[in-house]
Amino acid sequence: MNEAFKQAKEAFEEGEIPVGAVIVCKNRIIAKAYNQTEMLNDVTAHAEMLAITSAENYLGSKYLNECKLYVTLEPCAMCAGALFWSQIGEVHFAAPDHKRGFKQCNPAMLHPKTKLFQGPMALESEQLLLEFFKKLRN
Amino acid sequence: MNEAFKQAKEAFEEGEIPVGAVIVCKNRIIAKAYNQTEMLNDVTAHAEMLAITSAENYLGSKYLNECKLYVTLEPCAMCAGALFWSQIGEVHFAAPDHKRGFKQCNPAMLHPKTKLFQGPMALESEQLLLEFFKKLRN
Repeated sequence: MNEAFKQAKEAFEEGEIPVGAVIVCKNRIIAKAYNQTEMLNDVTAHAEMLAITSAENYLGSKYLNECKLYVTLEPCAMCAGALFWSQIGEVHFAAPDHKRGFKQCNPAMLHPKTKLFQGPMALESEQLLLEFFKKLRN
Repeated sequence: MNEAFKQAKEAFEEGEIPVGAVIVCKNRIIAKAYNQTEMLNDVTAHAEMLAITSAENYLGSKYLNECKLYVTLEPCAMCAGALFWSQIGEVHFAAPDHKRGFKQCNPAMLHPKTKLFQGPMALESEQLLLEFFKKLRN
């Protein structure tokens, strides 16, 4: 989750909503990404989506059964839908998203094989988001 | 929807699950795409996702309020989540997807501003999918 948080800080520095994600396979990080929706003008460019595409490209496979996603914010419905298709092994998220998190849409959106964990660093991740939005308003 | 169906036929020819999408803005097609999950080894490469990214890139905007999506199959939860973020004006789909369509996940997934239509060509679009899966099994 530390590495995902570093990605979120990169996003913050670039004026993007600070969310970061990494995908680990057999104890190795195979993909890192941060939210790039502003820079790319693309609503699909969430950290998780970019990390999924990158990991699948690296593995040459559409399926991530043996992988774990670490992300600093609870995935939205779009990202949870993508995670469903990937059949990813584990999802660990830091801060919950009580407004746009996938649990608000349907708590059973992930693949039945996917294990869900609320990971560490929830406070730091949330703090970074709050700081970003405060800065944006000023 | 005719143009979306042509995209679905392209997908069929290339061995992809035959779903096609186009995005129209002010009566002009600004993006066309077909499902490329197999070729790209990427679960996020649904026709709608590729069309959204392409349209947003063309317009230089994250928002598609003045646009209409035509797609040959009811969008899945991932695609509906992306359509939500884009605040697209209208979504027209041909064949319903009673298994993986977004309505099975949560019928209120689209943006409140988005108008939803079940468009024409449902039978042709479904027939093409059935033919594809029949061919795959043989």
